[in-house]
Amino acid sequence: MSVFSADDQIYMARALQLARYGLYTTHPNPRVGCVLVRAGQIVGEGWHERAGQRHAEIVALQAAQARAQGATAYVTLEPCSHYGRTPPCAEALVQAGVTKVMAAMVDPNPLVAGQGLARLKAAGIETQSGLMALEARALNPGFISSMERNRPFVRLKMAMSLDGRTAMASGDSVWITQEAARRDVQFWRAQAGAILTGIDTVLMDKPQLNVRLTAAELGIQSEVRQPIRVILDSKLRFPLDAPLLNTTGKVLIYTCSRDAAKMAALQKLGVNLRQFSGIRLDLSTVLGALVLDEINELHVEAGATLSGQFIEQGLADELVLYLAPHLMGSAARPLFNLPLATMAERYALNIRDIRAVGQDWRILADFQQE
Amino acid sequence: MSVFSADDQIYMARALQLARYGLYTTHPNPRVGCVLVRAGQIVGEGWHERAGQRHAEIVALQAAQARAQGATAYVTLEPCSHYGRTPPCAEALVQAGVTKVMAAMVDPNPLVAGQGLARLKAAGIETQSGLMALEARALNPGFISSMERNRPFVRLKMAMSLDGRTAMASGDSVWITQEAARRDVQFWRAQAGAILTGIDTVLMDKPQLNVRLTAAELGIQSEVRQPIRVILDSKLRFPLDAPLLNTTGKVLIYTCSRDAAKMAALQKLGVNLRQFSGIRLDLSTVLGALVLDEINELHVEAGATLSGQFIEQGLADELVLYLAPHLMGSAARPLFNLPLATMAERYALNIRDIRAVGQDWRILADFQQE
Repeated sequence: MSVFSADDQIYMARALQLARYGLYTTHPNPRVGCVLVRAGQIVGEGWHERAGQRHAEIVALQAAQARAQGATAYVTLEPCSHYGRTPPCAEALVQAGVTKVMAAMVDPNPLVAGQGLARLKAAGIETQSGLMALEARALNPGFISSMERNRPFVRLKMAMSLDGRTAMASGDSVWITQEAARRDVQFWRAQAGAILTGIDTVLMDKPQLNVRLTAAELGIQSEVRQPIRVILDSKLRFPLDAPLLNTTGKVLIYTCSRDAAKMAALQKLGVNLRQFSGIRLDLSTVLGALVLDEINELHVEAGATLSGQFIEQGLADELVLYLAPHLMGSAARPLFNLPLATMAERYALNIRDIRAVGQDWRILADFQQE
Repeated sequence: MSVFSADDQIYMARALQLARYGLYTTHPNPRVGCVLVRAGQIVGEGWHERAGQRHAEIVALQAAQARAQGATAYVTLEPCSHYGRTPPCAEALVQAGVTKVMAAMVDPNPLVAGQGLARLKAAGIETQSGLMALEARALNPGFISSMERNRPFVRLKMAMSLDGRTAMASGDSVWITQEAARRDVQFWRAQAGAILTGIDTVLMDKPQLNVRLTAAELGIQSEVRQPIRVILDSKLRFPLDAPLLNTTGKVLIYTCSRDAAKMAALQKLGVNLRQFSGIRLDLSTVLGALVLDEINELHVEAGATLSGQFIEQGLADELVLYLAPHLMGSAARPLFNLPLATMAERYALNIRDIRAVGQDWRILADFQQE
């Protein structure tokens, strides 16, 4: 177990802060920050902004110039050692004469984990990892999930009344929450790789499922990235006049249908289709396929049935739950369609944050995976 | 509109703080605090501890002795002008030579409101009221409700899962919340004049509904006061072996039954009975009767049906809701039996506090009365 100094913590905290600037833009890449320190002075820092652009280490090295010589690099993720969209960062750190590299965590991809640090070590550079690892992992739940579990990190967004209801029995619901909560949802959408819903929600609510915030509202310099909209539609009931199609951003329909005419009509409208075998989509298969589509962080805005299935199948990681200060009564629709018979079958969560969002409240909870 | 100085706020805040020491003991009297200030110095302070004992003003005057001469009295409630269990405080303030009296609020009893201040004015004392009135009202919701609405302040205590359920369909429930939350409930019980439940809860859960905290845990000097347990039992099904009867504290059964034998048996066990006409107890009538029994603050720990009736009839004021971080599923029992058809029928609440209590969370919400 390595021992880290207070200074180490300070510089890594700064690197984490920098990494967070990429929250809405790095998809499908991880958010990464880097700080170069020489003789107690930060001589360069950087963060990764967008896939295809410079990695955090390169930005920091270019800022530091010759002052990188003899510096310690604090990086929130192990520097890469492979030639991907950009040349390997481990190589660049060696070339720049960095003498020590502190990584918050090693690469979560089990096949490459440790190779970046090994490359540095081979060049005589001192390396350590694990400094503020939990914080670093929290930055990239999707990237880590894809690498470690071969499925995206799944975040369920729901809104309910104080008594746990989402709509009246008749379907009457309009908006449960108010403007501030609905705006807050936009920030969650913006950080996701994709937004997923079921065909029933598309048919009933006619949602757009896009990000309606400006770059300035998101605090980013570059263009707003629209997450892919993924629709689970086993029977291909997707309507050709869905409002989803009138907004920018890719639409991807997962289906089991073989209806060539409907498929052609949808493709003509710019919709992407993925065809699966069987008669009903299997959620595990869907999640595996999403990873192939480079979706790491999945934002689910679906109804009680589809959301309940994610939970039932152990495929939900996080719940973003908006709570409106109303009672909708016992005849109203449940939060999740989850029929359980005994207390022992309960699903346990860990509530990590509750806060007011305008007139409503937001609960953040993690599902406890067995 | 009176203008109050920063010093006025400071002294009244102190008086409110003193009044709060009586939270668990003053029943059925209001919690009252008093601070006497002369030449920028507190020369005496006091609070009312227990019915029949000295009022806050008298305690403060006795502490101040001769220094009360020329002082300003800050009292959280208009000094009384009538001979009750003790002589009138207005008289005592006059006798002591106080020159100014600042009351946070006038007496909520519309029949006597203002008479204490009028008595003081008549003696040449300067008076003002309304300083930190909201805070003063929050100290005594029950006393004020009894006076202004002729019914107790009704606080509903419930516990539910994150998806708004209280037990499995089978009845399987055990404890939804953990130890810390159940201990927190004890403090709410301790401040109530009475704890009310329905006969179904008595039969099913066999509760004791008493205060199981020590004086030290409550932070009080005197003996722990056991609130009266009130059972709504139209048909007098109360079992002679109910665990309720094995604990100290009065048991009061409200019934429509005429079963003289059962009544005699219960009375022999020390139970008090109140007989009402009709075949089913009417909640408004019950609340009116409770005021006659000097119950100002009513703590309801009942099931979904009785609690739902309080809400439906507009008789619920506050909700103390414990939230366990679990999902119990859509087949489980609802928080309240409240069948509503449209969104327009929703009950609006104002959530004023959410905080962690051990592993669970507690929501405090006020019902918005039309």
